[in-house]
Amino acid sequence: MARQPKKRDFPVARVRRYLEPGPIVLVTSRWRDETNVMTLGWHTILAFAPSLVGLMIAAGNHSFDMIRRSGECVINLPTTALIDAVVGIGNVSGAEVDKFARFGLTREDASLVGAPRIRECHASFECRLHDDALVDRYSFFIFEVVKAQVAASPKHPETLHYTGDGVFMVSGRIASRRSLFRPALLG
Amino acid sequence: MARQPKKRDFPVARVRRYLEPGPIVLVTSRWRDETNVMTLGWHTILAFAPSLVGLMIAAGNHSFDMIRRSGECVINLPTTALIDAVVGIGNVSGAEVDKFARFGLTREDASLVGAPRIRECHASFECRLHDDALVDRYSFFIFEVVKAQVAASPKHPETLHYTGDGVFMVSGRIASRRSLFRPALLG
Repeated sequence: MARQPKKRDFPVARVRRYLEPGPIVLVTSRWRDETNVMTLGWHTILAFAPSLVGLMIAAGNHSFDMIRRSGECVINLPTTALIDAVVGIGNVSGAEVDKFARFGLTREDASLVGAPRIRECHASFECRLHDDALVDRYSFFIFEVVKAQVAASPKHPETLHYTGDGVFMVSGRIASRRSLFRPALLG
Repeated sequence: MARQPKKRDFPVARVRRYLEPGPIVLVTSRWRDETNVMTLGWHTILAFAPSLVGLMIAAGNHSFDMIRRSGECVINLPTTALIDAVVGIGNVSGAEVDKFARFGLTREDASLVGAPRIRECHASFECRLHDDALVDRYSFFIFEVVKAQVAASPKHPETLHYTGDGVFMVSGRIASRRSLFRPALLG
């Protein structure tokens, strides 16, 4: 059983701290009585305030319709400890199995959206649909992060960055160049 | 002087290999006689074929108008060896200095676009504007990668992933789970 890190509230305007580095994330959804989770690597930060993120959710995914109909999701951040769950989730469809049960992930109620948070993840970002202008053409959803929670430690967890072909890069080692930045660009 | 890795052609449908992990990139542009380069961390893959990538280029950047007018750019991938150039470029404006000269980067002509490639980078992805529907609202450009070139070695270069506040995560160590993937999901 994976660890369930204790999380605390985190400012939504600062979620780039976790998403800009480009990790694989687990996106959860709910529609009526059904919940689902998918692996996703195609996302970008779009704005600090409101806190906007763009997600490309391929229309073939079981999650696509659930997210489109509900207009909500949770972006959960897994660390390397969850690599086998991340891979497993990306290789089966929620139309066939309960992926939470199969991969040992625990749902918990989110604060502001119907989609569940995943207890074993390092962080969770609750999202509401902000703009669907590019959903039909590119399956590109723009969400606003309305609530963020992050584990207090480790400060710099190792995350997974997908390259395709079953291969991930692992990120976590830190290189600071803070002293070289203009103060206006620092938080 | 940084190394100038020899690059060779790479299939545009496979650029996710380098961009999906979420590295900081250097985006070059040209408008009339002027060239420029900016640091960018807000991007995502959107499709394999055509090879589409989305870039959020904040309107305050000197590069914004140059890219909007020309409808072209090159996405260059720096490794950790270029960290000080990456930081420097992100902290000055092209309206004030020639960033190539100041940070020791060498322009070379691209194959299909007017914007220059950067010789010291590990890879270059030449892009033409595909869709500007979200530029006014979100400064979000959708480009098609029309030509890709990648250094043959190292196979897995260390890349920089920005977290804000002057701090990068370094990525490069590999974790393969290829044997756990459905064949249909492998290249």
